Amino acid sequence: MLLRMSTMLLKTLREEPAEAEVPSHRLLLRAGYIRRAAPGGFTWLPLGRLVLDRVTQVIREEMTAIGGQEVAFPALLPRDPYEVSGRWTEYGDEIFTLRDRRGAEFLLAPTHEEMFALLVQDMTSSYRDLPLVLFQIQTKFRDEARPRAGLLRGREFLMKDSYSFDLDDAGLGAAYALHRAAYQRVFERLGLEHTIVSATSGAMGGSASEEFLASSEVGEDTFVGCTACAYAANTEAVVTPVPAVPGREHPGLTVHDTPDSPTIAALVDLANARALDGRTDWTAADTLKNVVFTVHHPGREDELLAVGVPGDREIDTKRLDAALSPATVSVFDDFEAHPDLVKGYIGPQGIKIRYLADPRVATGTAWLTGANEPGRHATSVVAGRDFTPDGTVEAAEVRAGDPCPACGTGGLTIRRGIEIAHIFRLGRRYTDAFKVDVLGADGKPARLTMGSYGIGVSRAVASIAEQHRDDRGLLWPDEVAPADVHVIAAGKEGQVEAALDLGATLLAEGLRVLVDDRPQLSAGVKFTDAELIGIRRIVVVGRRLAEGYAEVRDRRTGERRDVPLADVTRVMKELAG
Amino acid sequence: MLLRMSTMLLKTLREEPAEAEVPSHRLLLRAGYIRRAAPGGFTWLPLGRLVLDRVTQVIREEMTAIGGQEVAFPALLPRDPYEVSGRWTEYGDEIFTLRDRRGAEFLLAPTHEEMFALLVQDMTSSYRDLPLVLFQIQTKFRDEARPRAGLLRGREFLMKDSYSFDLDDAGLGAAYALHRAAYQRVFERLGLEHTIVSATSGAMGGSASEEFLASSEVGEDTFVGCTACAYAANTEAVVTPVPAVPGREHPGLTVHDTPDSPTIAALVDLANARALDGRTDWTAADTLKNVVFTVHHPGREDELLAVGVPGDREIDTKRLDAALSPATVSVFDDFEAHPDLVKGYIGPQGIKIRYLADPRVATGTAWLTGANEPGRHATSVVAGRDFTPDGTVEAAEVRAGDPCPACGTGGLTIRRGIEIAHIFRLGRRYTDAFKVDVLGADGKPARLTMGSYGIGVSRAVASIAEQHRDDRGLLWPDEVAPADVHVIAAGKEGQVEAALDLGATLLAEGLRVLVDDRPQLSAGVKFTDAELIGIRRIVVVGRRLAEGYAEVRDRRTGERRDVPLADVTRVMKELAG
Repeated sequence: MLLRMSTMLLKTLREEPAEAEVPSHRLLLRAGYIRRAAPGGFTWLPLGRLVLDRVTQVIREEMTAIGGQEVAFPALLPRDPYEVSGRWTEYGDEIFTLRDRRGAEFLLAPTHEEMFALLVQDMTSSYRDLPLVLFQIQTKFRDEARPRAGLLRGREFLMKDSYSFDLDDAGLGAAYALHRAAYQRVFERLGLEHTIVSATSGAMGGSASEEFLASSEVGEDTFVGCTACAYAANTEAVVTPVPAVPGREHPGLTVHDTPDSPTIAALVDLANARALDGRTDWTAADTLKNVVFTVHHPGREDELLAVGVPGDREIDTKRLDAALSPATVSVFDDFEAHPDLVKGYIGPQGIKIRYLADPRVATGTAWLTGANEPGRHATSVVAGRDFTPDGTVEAAEVRAGDPCPACGTGGLTIRRGIEIAHIFRLGRRYTDAFKVDVLGADGKPARLTMGSYGIGVSRAVASIAEQHRDDRGLLWPDEVAPADVHVIAAGKEGQVEAALDLGATLLAEGLRVLVDDRPQLSAGVKFTDAELIGIRRIVVVGRRLAEGYAEVRDRRTGERRDVPLADVTRVMKELAG
Repeated sequence: MLLRMSTMLLKTLREEPAEAEVPSHRLLLRAGYIRRAAPGGFTWLPLGRLVLDRVTQVIREEMTAIGGQEVAFPALLPRDPYEVSGRWTEYGDEIFTLRDRRGAEFLLAPTHEEMFALLVQDMTSSYRDLPLVLFQIQTKFRDEARPRAGLLRGREFLMKDSYSFDLDDAGLGAAYALHRAAYQRVFERLGLEHTIVSATSGAMGGSASEEFLASSEVGEDTFVGCTACAYAANTEAVVTPVPAVPGREHPGLTVHDTPDSPTIAALVDLANARALDGRTDWTAADTLKNVVFTVHHPGREDELLAVGVPGDREIDTKRLDAALSPATVSVFDDFEAHPDLVKGYIGPQGIKIRYLADPRVATGTAWLTGANEPGRHATSVVAGRDFTPDGTVEAAEVRAGDPCPACGTGGLTIRRGIEIAHIFRLGRRYTDAFKVDVLGADGKPARLTMGSYGIGVSRAVASIAEQHRDDRGLLWPDEVAPADVHVIAAGKEGQVEAALDLGATLLAEGLRVLVDDRPQLSAGVKFTDAELIGIRRIVVVGRRLAEGYAEVRDRRTGERRDVPLADVTRVMKELAG
């Protein structure tokens, strides 16, 4: 197909769109790939649609290569299966729900574990029907509280979701490995630099999961790597190593007057000034900070929770949310209603609400913490002696340089990334819920085990745009570019006709061609637009047309050279190689 | 891609599925193309997905051939644009609406006229940017009161919708003609026998529209043709010719006692028995039947309406609904609340509610009708003298043999069909609503004019299945079949391996191949499944394998012949020609 810019629905923008927060969003808007149509909803314009199709096709090919079979489910589904699995409640506000004209409840499905489990239950009966990998490439809807960053976090987006069904853990492991490898090939073809990290599974359930994070400063996820080993994890999934606690005797708990010290900094200053317990080397790490949260459990009542972390660390509410998923937290501040919770002076000893502590608050560790009285703190408050937490929780911030949980020798580095894929070993959560059995080889019913695997297709497009751009515009990897060659008619005499002829020749050679044949624009405007649009190979049919030459440019290297018109096709193919 | 039935998600059904009402639905279920997933929502299984892709591809090619540019809008859209156009209200219960977590109102868009108008307003500024044809192939949602017949009337379905934008009527006419011709090519390629008929435009608006109806006994639409000319119309769109009324003098209106004659039949019998007005040749066609309806106007109060039609015709509520669109009607029966409406004896003279009459009730025609008193009728009730309707309405049934509204000489025939496409000359309804102007060649603003054009993609699949089947199963046209060749391993020794080898050879020649390599099934079961699945070209690798022969079958003609294995590829390609 020869794309002609003179008739294409395309309007590039010179100015920065006010609505755009991140580079990919700005450039995709400016270059005419997308337009906003709704809060968190975008229209794919002709150029954008071509890129989306290319990305979709790469994913489809790699899924087919691992034996995936493509199906397509409805997006609008009845409540019942999601009620059975518990996700109707667990997803809460995150899903769009609605009623039909008769009042029956439906949802716009976030993913389709329930429906695939039911389908496989319907369509299989014997171990011979397994294993199965099924996938779909489908529009998904989520009621994001804060749609942002264009395609990176929308309310309606394209997703490839696949589901594996196996007889046993070994089968699930194999399907998981196949997906992991297929995803690596996908992202390599898409030119997406990424890291595979351990992740939390959230409301999806299952025993273990990994995310593919595309490196990007604008990513919403932070992840750690180790300077010494291969460990990589979403900060939400970092497991703090429990410190070895020397079995030494602590003095008894002592309460001190500590007026005007509701903050850690003030408390440490005061402790050193007064030499509490005879010490003047108090640091924030010796204190235990206790923060109260309201926990919102989907489908049931809120609960109060106190979380204790060493005073030198902030609480990372994304980590806390992940640890408590599907519940979410908000900071509690109605202290008047709870006189037993003394703001600024809370200690875990005798606390009346649920109390979870950081793993560093191990049995036998001693802390300087609140005495649960205004203006008083206590020293030598020993975990396991003076208080016993209801459990541990990963809520403290992860910091660069923290010890590696895997090798213990390296330190952690922290980077940001965009979650472009997530793969889950689900196990039997959904097959148990729907009793998905087949007759095993031994003649007995066998409960199937499941994996689920998702790629954010539209998000991948934005991630490619984030990673492949410069200050002049986009710079697509060849595999996903909307065309292979961008031919510019940089003149008004015979150039337009010659550019179209050249386009037709390139097309006949199997290349996809975009021709800038707009009659009323200057060469300068066309060059600027070409750099914005970001197709790597550019051919300029300009002033040397009369001599039989065109100029070939490589948008990536900046290289330019004049080439006889007759050789352009050959040169284009070489550049492609 | 070589499709192997041994690993495919496929379960054919021998028994008739209880849920299926029409042949296409039964066969698509039985042959493993679709499964029900929700009320009016279906899952495309791997075989079905392939057919859907083929149909989609044909449509995409023909839309691109007329210069259509593919885009993709969100389905979930804010209320506001649809409020501006009036469709939020007019579509009423037909659309799914919902609120997001903040309470903002959204709809799942039935079609996208509003959004395309806004997009074109945003992206164009000059007459040079026109004309435009934009299309998308997208999942649509409608809250059908009665989803039925499988894919034929669902709540979630795939649709190709396109929109043309032009400067003037001539441009719109050209875009309309291009679409009409493109659709004819699409349906020819899909093997869909169809008729293009005049149609009503309903809530879409616009001056004129045509439907493409695929001939089928299970179609929900009835349409007429003329025995003498090319006239064809949906019965909803048939315009009754107004009869020539001789200008003769009628006697004065006379009221008669007509006890126990609330029905037309009883009334005619009584009129003849008593020789009312000295006549004994009364027929139902001489009477005027007046039926009261409650009209439900979307977004405002119900209204009472009396409709008068000649007594020999039933009222066709589909025609009445179409005439009153976007309002709908239900038969009124609360006569106790309206003592002025005397059930069975209603006449138009002095009626106090809105009264619309059939075009046959022309000025100067005289009728035997109710006298608005229990047990009494009136003769010589003359239109224009004794009563004047508030207007005419097309509500009477259309009957085979009715005079043709176009040529007047032929009689109408009636058939049933499935609406597979609908094309609208919208004009400026939406561009006026959103003030979509460009700067014209004359330097003045020009308001654009629009067409909209839809093909029901998933419905087309079902329509093909309706038209292409026999008592053994489906029989796909080559262009849409899930594979080009169905290879059956009809034996358990070397046949499976040979069938897979043959499949690989055919695949290398560019044919799409389905191989029945299921090890545990008999040849008979495989033959039955092959006929059910409906790929035309079948190759059986069976008992003559040892001699180097396979059997080639044509599912359509029933022809069978033994062919040397080495020649199978050539023969398959010949059959394709």
